[in-house]
Amino acid sequence: MCVNGTGETVRARTSGTEASAPPAPPAGQRPVGYRRVADLSHVVSPSMPTFDPEKPRREAVDPPLADGAFGFFQQRWTLLEHTGTHLDAPGHVVGGGRLVPDIRPEELVVPVAVIDIRDRARQDPDTVVTVDDLLAHEQRHGPIPSGAAVLMHSGWSRHWERGDEAVRGVAADDSWHFPGFGPEACEFLVSRRAVTGVGVDTLSTDPGASSDFPAHEVIGRADRWGLEALTGLDRIPPTGATLMVGVFPGEDASGGPSRVLALW
Amino acid sequence: MCVNGTGETVRARTSGTEASAPPAPPAGQRPVGYRRVADLSHVVSPSMPTFDPEKPRREAVDPPLADGAFGFFQQRWTLLEHTGTHLDAPGHVVGGGRLVPDIRPEELVVPVAVIDIRDRARQDPDTVVTVDDLLAHEQRHGPIPSGAAVLMHSGWSRHWERGDEAVRGVAADDSWHFPGFGPEACEFLVSRRAVTGVGVDTLSTDPGASSDFPAHEVIGRADRWGLEALTGLDRIPPTGATLMVGVFPGEDASGGPSRVLALW
Repeated sequence: MCVNGTGETVRARTSGTEASAPPAPPAGQRPVGYRRVADLSHVVSPSMPTFDPEKPRREAVDPPLADGAFGFFQQRWTLLEHTGTHLDAPGHVVGGGRLVPDIRPEELVVPVAVIDIRDRARQDPDTVVTVDDLLAHEQRHGPIPSGAAVLMHSGWSRHWERGDEAVRGVAADDSWHFPGFGPEACEFLVSRRAVTGVGVDTLSTDPGASSDFPAHEVIGRADRWGLEALTGLDRIPPTGATLMVGVFPGEDASGGPSRVLALW
Repeated sequence: MCVNGTGETVRARTSGTEASAPPAPPAGQRPVGYRRVADLSHVVSPSMPTFDPEKPRREAVDPPLADGAFGFFQQRWTLLEHTGTHLDAPGHVVGGGRLVPDIRPEELVVPVAVIDIRDRARQDPDTVVTVDDLLAHEQRHGPIPSGAAVLMHSGWSRHWERGDEAVRGVAADDSWHFPGFGPEACEFLVSRRAVTGVGVDTLSTDPGASSDFPAHEVIGRADRWGLEALTGLDRIPPTGATLMVGVFPGEDASGGPSRVLALW
């Protein structure tokens, strides 16, 4: 099988060279096994909530097709790399850090741990994921696997259809309020749990009230990725799923819109 | 386990409703098992080969960060939905056909069959995948699994770095020449093998010389997707891998740039 005794997945880096014969699965190896697939990505649209004021734009470049007619229809998009459900590469926040094309394929297919802070987030929009939350998760669900993506499940994606003001948690004084990761939890995850990345169901890895973005800094300086604006975290189990991060492979990209799927 | 006796993967559609408790993996179920991950996507850049004359554009919207400095860097992209490694939704070619957000998550994670026509394509750039090619593949590697993505491996992606003229196979009379799927093979795959989609390592599902695009029409009218401009097909086995299609989830999108990963 493909998993060792500690639950750590054994993965081989595929090289960019043209191999003469691809490695075939060993005789008797079963196809990749899973029962369920969930989509953790928002649809990207000009009216969607965003962290930046700039919204994605789209325009039809071919005429719409009449019902049942054969022809060609497509749109043109203009958008920032950090739009919708998206990945932050280390180079988004740290000069000289890795950009999207530098991220290896095996960093895009990883085990998941979902940290549920919904109860607290309902009371306090400024709450953050703490080291205690991570230890409580491990107590209940077992160790966070090496190489995991650790996802904050604050329940915040339920606000998505209500637009920017609700998703940003704009207060009377124009300050923003939504949950995120505390820097100590990020430090713990990169130094003690060897995570591949972290993810949130809000607009930013740091909480909305942050002005110095320490979670971004810890994650970026540790050469890990972040995923922002996830949805559907209530549909996947707290442990045992595999995440596939389909990040747009842009040249020199600091990040990119991502189709994120979970299998389990 | 998750695979029945015929190698057909059993998948459950996840609903869009907010479930109170996500289904946990049954006790003793192993995490999704795989040994290798390969990236089958080209990097998207303004100089990349394209079918349409329009190239993707990118511009930095934040100043580049000094080495080791903490800050924010990102780019803005303007691009057509059918740029780089990308998916064609049925509605790209058939009026009223499904668009990207209509494609279900379980249609984006599928078993793969790779049809190797490299020898013939080296001699004849106008060659197409035939029903005989599909039967010969099955003779050698076993039945194409139900729900599979069937990928043409013509070796054409080796021309990618040489630019438009090489990838389009432009002849002295300006006609285009690269391999593709024949319509009979597409008809066979949708009606006799229940495929989820087809893919090619060229710029189009139809061969470059086509002017009426019958492979597009058969696939689109059958409500299946196509993947174009794949790369790295020499790195994955002819059968036994699972494809993950990370297509950009654009509103009303006829298709989209896709991060395509294979696991096996």
